[in-house]
Amino acid sequence: MKIGLGVDVGGTFAKLVAVEPRGRPLYQTQVPTEPGRGPRSFIRRLLGQIRSAELELGRKFEAVGLGVAGDVDPEKGVLRYAPNLKDWSGFSFKASLGDKLHRPLVVENDANMAAWGGFALELGKRPKTMVAITLGTGVGGGIIVDRKLYRGATGSAGEIGHMRVEPRGELCHCGSRGCLEAYAGSYGIVRSVRKLLGPGRKGSILKSLCPDLDGLTPSTIALAAEKGDPVAQAAWIRTGYYLGLGIVNLVYCFNPEAVLIVGGVSKAGPLLLKPLTEVLQSQPFRTPFRKVSVRIARRSDLGALGAALLALEESG
Amino acid sequence: MKIGLGVDVGGTFAKLVAVEPRGRPLYQTQVPTEPGRGPRSFIRRLLGQIRSAELELGRKFEAVGLGVAGDVDPEKGVLRYAPNLKDWSGFSFKASLGDKLHRPLVVENDANMAAWGGFALELGKRPKTMVAITLGTGVGGGIIVDRKLYRGATGSAGEIGHMRVEPRGELCHCGSRGCLEAYAGSYGIVRSVRKLLGPGRKGSILKSLCPDLDGLTPSTIALAAEKGDPVAQAAWIRTGYYLGLGIVNLVYCFNPEAVLIVGGVSKAGPLLLKPLTEVLQSQPFRTPFRKVSVRIARRSDLGALGAALLALEESG
Repeated sequence: MKIGLGVDVGGTFAKLVAVEPRGRPLYQTQVPTEPGRGPRSFIRRLLGQIRSAELELGRKFEAVGLGVAGDVDPEKGVLRYAPNLKDWSGFSFKASLGDKLHRPLVVENDANMAAWGGFALELGKRPKTMVAITLGTGVGGGIIVDRKLYRGATGSAGEIGHMRVEPRGELCHCGSRGCLEAYAGSYGIVRSVRKLLGPGRKGSILKSLCPDLDGLTPSTIALAAEKGDPVAQAAWIRTGYYLGLGIVNLVYCFNPEAVLIVGGVSKAGPLLLKPLTEVLQSQPFRTPFRKVSVRIARRSDLGALGAALLALEESG
Repeated sequence: MKIGLGVDVGGTFAKLVAVEPRGRPLYQTQVPTEPGRGPRSFIRRLLGQIRSAELELGRKFEAVGLGVAGDVDPEKGVLRYAPNLKDWSGFSFKASLGDKLHRPLVVENDANMAAWGGFALELGKRPKTMVAITLGTGVGGGIIVDRKLYRGATGSAGEIGHMRVEPRGELCHCGSRGCLEAYAGSYGIVRSVRKLLGPGRKGSILKSLCPDLDGLTPSTIALAAEKGDPVAQAAWIRTGYYLGLGIVNLVYCFNPEAVLIVGGVSKAGPLLLKPLTEVLQSQPFRTPFRKVSVRIARRSDLGALGAALLALEESG
């Protein structure tokens, strides 16, 4: 049985996972990214880790998939730009890693990898068409058409965090206004809470959980909302509302069978699902919504798993 | 050489066009729709017209494509709902027409047919991925992926007129608020002019062109704008702005090679293109826009042409 290796490169660590084609993980580990030492140093350490993993498992990886959070050219395997790895812009993973691996390498945006992981592992029968939305610091996505990863003209398909859901709205990290990410990315959610809190409110559950509001995170906000904090609850309603609008737009365009929400922020679960479902249900033109199932992913490591599985899929 | 017949069913007339596979029209005519007499009466008259067309041409149509403005189930060939043909809801063109034709029949939403026509005839080399936006009373669209018509889970892919570009915005015919159609459909454009005119303005070029403002149409508004009417110009800027936002969202999702704008309202040309191009160019995240060409279609009969060509394509 063939096994694949998936690598999910983040700003601090790269997660490695070896999986068999049905998604069972056989081995996992981490390599520090250490962005300051440059991408070549990272590649050397990654190759060392791959070799020792193969020794430990006693078998070779058939194919390697590597996902990076950022703007990736999948054809050339080049990281065009990554907010967390700014100095690595223009670096070709395919040239530097591919040459030394002597086996197929797939390089992709991390959201596309997570979308593939979700498509392969989260939905029972693989749907024909699917959209994944990844909620983290930023908001990304990936699109499946005809049970294949759909990449688009520049490999940018699924950049749904920058769909503009409120044209004169909140500022996004990209510099534009009213992008979905500006509401549903973790920084947008934290900003919502700050705005809603204002200077006057005291004694809220939020402040007791997180006296230093500088350290607010989506998970603290979710905890506060579950304990009944009205500001935290209002923030999730706002987030779910805009996420719902984004999904409405995706459904009218793409008419997918499934929408899968993945990533750290998706752990808020019902706090997100309830308001977004209300937006979906309030659309008067119903046909495109009849066959779509909207779910939150159970697994939290879909980026690395999907990287391994996509590499196996596209090499075999 | 095979020839196909395309039928574009509107509320008043159905346009028929016979074309050879490269798009050259060989024959065209019209059949009155007469919605009040019911769909079976229409089918009888259409079949009669098809027979006489074949006699006149001295050859048989290899395949027939039929497009209807409305919510169409392409798998079953059923018109689920059409605003212009309300009493025909639920009618199966495939059952009633297909049985009598004894040759392949493709039934589709008219915007998907126009998208296919544009894809086949308007862009020189056929792009791999394309989005068409049809601007008429309503706003529709069609999507090409991998040089095939992409239909989605319920055949509703490309319903981009109902993407919500201004969530608490103008009322749409569908009953929702802020849909693209509410700004870029002809009724939305006329409404923009009325709002901008207000009660006070007199002596504008618009009013001299169209003293009875009840008869305002996008073509009058375009003429007035070309003659320098500031209200008409502002209305086109508003329309182009929202159309630009819709295209931005499509490009971030789909990352197509081409966006083609078709339909009556697209005749406004530069009045639309200038403001929409400004929106596209103002997006800070540029990669997805690098390979996309945005154009207005030259042909005005892409619905019928596309129907014939899609029927030939999918039957052969």
